[in-house]
Amino acid sequence: MLSISNRGKDMPASPIRKLVPFAEAAKKRGTKVYHLNIGQPDIETPKMVLDAVRNSDFKVLEYSHSAGNESYRRKLVGYYESVGIHVNHQQIIITTGGSEAILFGFMACLDAGDEVIIPEPFYANYNGFAVAAGVKVVPITSQIENGFALPPIEAFEAKITAKTKAIVICNPNNPTGYLYSAQEMEQLKAIILKHNLYLFSDEAYREFCYDGVNTSAMHLQGVDDHVVIMDTISKRYSACGGRIGALITKNQAVLDAAMKFAQARLSPPSFAQIAGEAAIDLPTNYFDTTKAEYKSRRDIIVQRLNAMDGVFCPNPGGAFYAIAKLPIDDADMFCQWLLEEFSYNQVTVMLAPATGFYSTPGLGKQEVRLAYVLNKTDIDAAMDCLEAALKAYPRKTN
Amino acid sequence: MLSISNRGKDMPASPIRKLVPFAEAAKKRGTKVYHLNIGQPDIETPKMVLDAVRNSDFKVLEYSHSAGNESYRRKLVGYYESVGIHVNHQQIIITTGGSEAILFGFMACLDAGDEVIIPEPFYANYNGFAVAAGVKVVPITSQIENGFALPPIEAFEAKITAKTKAIVICNPNNPTGYLYSAQEMEQLKAIILKHNLYLFSDEAYREFCYDGVNTSAMHLQGVDDHVVIMDTISKRYSACGGRIGALITKNQAVLDAAMKFAQARLSPPSFAQIAGEAAIDLPTNYFDTTKAEYKSRRDIIVQRLNAMDGVFCPNPGGAFYAIAKLPIDDADMFCQWLLEEFSYNQVTVMLAPATGFYSTPGLGKQEVRLAYVLNKTDIDAAMDCLEAALKAYPRKTN
Repeated sequence: MLSISNRGKDMPASPIRKLVPFAEAAKKRGTKVYHLNIGQPDIETPKMVLDAVRNSDFKVLEYSHSAGNESYRRKLVGYYESVGIHVNHQQIIITTGGSEAILFGFMACLDAGDEVIIPEPFYANYNGFAVAAGVKVVPITSQIENGFALPPIEAFEAKITAKTKAIVICNPNNPTGYLYSAQEMEQLKAIILKHNLYLFSDEAYREFCYDGVNTSAMHLQGVDDHVVIMDTISKRYSACGGRIGALITKNQAVLDAAMKFAQARLSPPSFAQIAGEAAIDLPTNYFDTTKAEYKSRRDIIVQRLNAMDGVFCPNPGGAFYAIAKLPIDDADMFCQWLLEEFSYNQVTVMLAPATGFYSTPGLGKQEVRLAYVLNKTDIDAAMDCLEAALKAYPRKTN
Repeated sequence: MLSISNRGKDMPASPIRKLVPFAEAAKKRGTKVYHLNIGQPDIETPKMVLDAVRNSDFKVLEYSHSAGNESYRRKLVGYYESVGIHVNHQQIIITTGGSEAILFGFMACLDAGDEVIIPEPFYANYNGFAVAAGVKVVPITSQIENGFALPPIEAFEAKITAKTKAIVICNPNNPTGYLYSAQEMEQLKAIILKHNLYLFSDEAYREFCYDGVNTSAMHLQGVDDHVVIMDTISKRYSACGGRIGALITKNQAVLDAAMKFAQARLSPPSFAQIAGEAAIDLPTNYFDTTKAEYKSRRDIIVQRLNAMDGVFCPNPGGAFYAIAKLPIDDADMFCQWLLEEFSYNQVTVMLAPATGFYSTPGLGKQEVRLAYVLNKTDIDAAMDCLEAALKAYPRKTN
């Protein structure tokens, strides 16, 4: 009998996917499902970005440079400059989505058996890339009570072993929405310098900070060789399907190694590089509008959640996610119940159980992640529905 | 001091890339360089394929399904049916280029330390994906004297160990152009059945067979669980930059495992899936024209090469590559010399030293790969140049 690989067995399934059949069944029954479960924004991709692709006139859809089109990388230098990140175009490798930047970073810096520390709850797919790379994820739990702030330095030091090679952060954070302060970033700098670690910084949501400013890992001084940024245009320009991201580092050895992985897969997608390059010419006030929209959605969803009996939702400083603690027995069962058994005015809501974002077993059982990627009217309707659901749920804890 | 990973060190650099600076320098000196070194076709991407993207009218560039758009996969079923491959849409996972199909296949079926047997010379990037997956490549040498036919069954059996999990073939072959016969495919079937191995079959050049017919690994009977096809639209429709491929298997466990890797990277590129889907509606005679063009190019390049003193080039049955044995000391040095020191009527030619396609050290030192991806006039001019170069080269062996 042929068997699949152990890593194929160990590979975690998407924590959200198991609920998809229940959502599909609900829709077949005529129930409208509000999707607050995934980070697919409803914000339109800027027309000029799509038009750049639609108005292209090349005759052959050719491979690009393995690091991405030089014209795009050169323009990105200006974009990064505008957010205080000073790099040259040779320090940028265009990747197929932020996903591939994570994979290349892990592959270039980490060997099988190496350990990476990640504050949990964390973006579930880090697990997947860790399994692909044979790397062990060591979680440090952040607490909903303090809004998922960076755990204290002692918590990191307690987890560091001879095999620890890196700390992974996502800032602003998916799934918590937490925005690390400049002081917290300095704490991380102290740890990576003291223990000679890489700092992988996923900055996919850089533009979406509502209270306070974003501190990039590349704003830190004196850690150029330690920092690897994973970036993407997916959220920045509502262009998730483009699959265009970037790995950025000033560490030449990491760049050289990552380039070899980039060459093996030939090139990132050509169409969407045109879109990415066009996006850099968006008016500087483009993010103002989008950010204001997300902020007002955040304000509504957090206010609505905290007004519900027994619900606690810390106010996220960035990204477009919030984690709420609900008065329920089990988030996985509750989210399934919402789709399978509940409806309110022919409507229900799909949420992501937070258990999928924790690596420590048993954590997050009362928590759900909500992505505020719907307009305010829909968010309000979804919150009406959730409020009614919490009243009707038979296995409440208060 | 921070160090990169061992796999980052072990990762092979592109065997062609080291020559790029010499090509660039030649161009700066005013020398025209004929690129026969890479498989980037000059054939135009069909206009209706590009127009499908250009005429798209969606407002949000969304993630697709992790396995690719269902509409695309359903249409692909018809395409595969037309080439005698009977699968349903759930047995197809759309990948980011054929590259990602190779990666997912390796990741889903193989663990670190496992061995795969590959007839050499082989597509150099298999090495890269093997390093990424921690898999050991065991080469079996095929011989230029018999046109790079499949090595005898005994050669495979001599290499099989307890760790052997798969055989990888590319058919028609890159870099040799060899087209495996139905009988050779049956030989492979016997081996994989006897030793319980996977057969990874890279069929990127399926449409381009000039002498004889293509036998897909999925034409073999009774090995459904063993066969994993890696496919791509890159060469089929001259759409390399789209980065759309597919992993196809009837082995449900492999599909399930590969889907988890697919979910971790979210989705394949959305724009080019539109292109891929449109391509299925090309008129059935589309390939006739392209194939006739490649065949006539092959006929010219092989005839010209064999007419040169001391040169031997077997006639490739498919794809758009040929390997030629030249009367030279060292193909790497010769290819560099062509770019660095030689020109003929202000022209030179860039070739790929075949050493990069062999895994056994020392092999291929007198061989080069030529991709016939230029029009016939250019191929003739490139051959004039190569012929003159061979006369002028100071380190000839005959």
